[in-house]
Amino acid sequence: MTYQSMSRQELESLRDRLLSKYNEYKADGIKLDMARGKPDKQQLDISEEILGLITKNEQCIASDGTDCRNYGGLDGLASAKELFADVFGLRAENIILGGNSSLNMMYDTVARAYTFGFCDSERPWCREEKIKFLCPSPGYDRHFAICELFGIEMITVAMNDDGPDMETVKKYVESDSAVRGIWCVPKYSNPTGIVYSDDVVRAFAALKPAARDFRIFWDNAYAIHDFGENIPILNILEECEKTGRPNMPIMFASTSKITFPGSGVALMSASLENLNYMKKQLSIQTIGPDKINQLRHVAFFKNKQGMMEHMKRHADILRPKFETVVAAFEKELSGTGIASWTTPRGGYFISFESLPGCAPAIYKLALDAGLTLTNVGATYPYGKDPKDSNIRIAPSFPDVESLKLAVERFIVCVKLASVEKLLSEK
Amino acid sequence: MTYQSMSRQELESLRDRLLSKYNEYKADGIKLDMARGKPDKQQLDISEEILGLITKNEQCIASDGTDCRNYGGLDGLASAKELFADVFGLRAENIILGGNSSLNMMYDTVARAYTFGFCDSERPWCREEKIKFLCPSPGYDRHFAICELFGIEMITVAMNDDGPDMETVKKYVESDSAVRGIWCVPKYSNPTGIVYSDDVVRAFAALKPAARDFRIFWDNAYAIHDFGENIPILNILEECEKTGRPNMPIMFASTSKITFPGSGVALMSASLENLNYMKKQLSIQTIGPDKINQLRHVAFFKNKQGMMEHMKRHADILRPKFETVVAAFEKELSGTGIASWTTPRGGYFISFESLPGCAPAIYKLALDAGLTLTNVGATYPYGKDPKDSNIRIAPSFPDVESLKLAVERFIVCVKLASVEKLLSEK
Repeated sequence: MTYQSMSRQELESLRDRLLSKYNEYKADGIKLDMARGKPDKQQLDISEEILGLITKNEQCIASDGTDCRNYGGLDGLASAKELFADVFGLRAENIILGGNSSLNMMYDTVARAYTFGFCDSERPWCREEKIKFLCPSPGYDRHFAICELFGIEMITVAMNDDGPDMETVKKYVESDSAVRGIWCVPKYSNPTGIVYSDDVVRAFAALKPAARDFRIFWDNAYAIHDFGENIPILNILEECEKTGRPNMPIMFASTSKITFPGSGVALMSASLENLNYMKKQLSIQTIGPDKINQLRHVAFFKNKQGMMEHMKRHADILRPKFETVVAAFEKELSGTGIASWTTPRGGYFISFESLPGCAPAIYKLALDAGLTLTNVGATYPYGKDPKDSNIRIAPSFPDVESLKLAVERFIVCVKLASVEKLLSEK
Repeated sequence: MTYQSMSRQELESLRDRLLSKYNEYKADGIKLDMARGKPDKQQLDISEEILGLITKNEQCIASDGTDCRNYGGLDGLASAKELFADVFGLRAENIILGGNSSLNMMYDTVARAYTFGFCDSERPWCREEKIKFLCPSPGYDRHFAICELFGIEMITVAMNDDGPDMETVKKYVESDSAVRGIWCVPKYSNPTGIVYSDDVVRAFAALKPAARDFRIFWDNAYAIHDFGENIPILNILEECEKTGRPNMPIMFASTSKITFPGSGVALMSASLENLNYMKKQLSIQTIGPDKINQLRHVAFFKNKQGMMEHMKRHADILRPKFETVVAAFEKELSGTGIASWTTPRGGYFISFESLPGCAPAIYKLALDAGLTLTNVGATYPYGKDPKDSNIRIAPSFPDVESLKLAVERFIVCVKLASVEKLLSEK
């Protein structure tokens, strides 16, 4: 029976039962958190070995003779580039390795475009009257924050089950030369968990941008973060080579959610023309990334197979958590007509849709009952969810027991906010 | 007897003897290098222990409970900030820890000013018609390269034995509101090795800039890199607090030449107003620096005393190299009237002055005889040494035996170029 079909009396009676439960939660002092997309302790523990693999001077000499302790190597260690090339289906020569943060590499890429432009820009972006980015939403708040900081106008594009609405993307990119970028998380998209279909990737490669320096920011954060079988996506660099627009995509990735979030290795991959142009600026910016940490990663994984096996251990920790959340949603919310949610097969998030307008109330109810959720609106440009209905659920950090308590509490808040809304409309 | 007082005949005879020696060098195929200001293998070896101090999961928990493996900690680990505060005479709250490169922090500071301005800027620097920086020279080429990349006009200021010519600095800073910065290496300045006197530091603090967002970029790269006794310099942050201009200085440092150049920890220190403004942007740029590496540094040094003792081991390796170079210069060039040089008590460089106009010829002669020197001009803005006389000598990387050969060869090149010049003027 859907909530919408309930009578006022039924809704009032339901509200009373929910309120009684809610007040118990409010009183019990338990603090819970489903806001943070970070690995839990168990996940960190499985990478322990990486810490102790390079402990002697002689181990700091890479296979190509590089003394990783000293200066040098602007774009990273050759053996680490080869490892990542294999894992992500790239050519090593198309890779720049960075520090510990792919976000930092994305920010720097936008910052460089702002100040110097790309290799094919008419002028630096800061000399343009207006720069616009397309933001498939719900999306990743940290992408949007970069745009906001640089004064880049964000245009919300709908997210479908197979990727962004490519008709809208095409319309904007091909008609408006102020549109210079789009943010994409092509696999296990943050927060919906959807995977871009081959058609969508090909539609990206087929774009004929009005601006010659239009760039696809391809944040491949969850490329190998499958809960089960590895789901392949098309390689955007290859697809854009085929269509004759090799400079269009820039891919980003990192081992933040493979080894350690604070001490991983980030990378970017793009055409040689793109990279060579950026390396000139990079050579002024830095003396190069931490090569010893790159060496640790090579020693730990050895090869692609090593990394894929390691990811299975992450999957074994994460899968039950996602199953816990989805099972509770199915049991408690299926058929109620007040919610929908995604069931990702990898990644770090579940996207939850409440009745329109209910997300802020759910957030507030949860907070008052000790449960922290991702800020509502965070998944949309400027923090403004047009329907006020999206909530990003992050099941990774709490242990399964805490997660059960958190979801139970969350569901009561969802129901309560929905009942209140429906009652107010009666 | 000075070369200048020699007759044409004497000079010609000297030239023949030098040429004969030079041609031997040219033929022997030996490759030597005094260009690179990087630590040698011995220096890297003494930090071996730092590699093996954090090898277990439980060791990754910092004293304040932070799990250093995970996300979090935008401005660095508290215990590492405390260690550096003690070593550099700072308050921990005034420190931001970065990745492995203080150069990167300097670049980012200029880049942020360019795009967003400082806390007290009227507008971002990219919206100003012109931005100028003062560049005490000879100075550090990587500082100048940042200015050049951002289109910042560089004004050369003379370097004296106790720091930049402060009358010129004061004149520019106080009269021209386009002057927004100055590059300083206050201790063992790159490349002259001079140390700023207390008067010079106080003159900096007493500046009354025409621009309200004028900044002193205080690259304290060699703060504890003494060959003997530690030579203290005045604390620029404290001095500027006293004069009521706490936002004026930004200090940078790193452990690149303390532990490992590729895997050290960089830091910056400034007023809270400066830092808080920058942290807002930093929180969009990155998820925070590598905390495990910071933890390694804390575990390795434990406290200031530990770091100072470690620096004595570096000094014991570097001192003989500097002595080798200076002794050879004194023996071979004293009284010749064709050269002068500095005798630093710390740092990484010796500054060498040839007869005006001779540096390019010396560089070329050396290169042809297998000896690589720092590019001539590198120590001046835009790579243009107005007198074509300055050569930066970097004695740290070669072993003492190679260094002896290199200096011997260098001296012959200096003499030969000088004789040629004097002959051409006869």
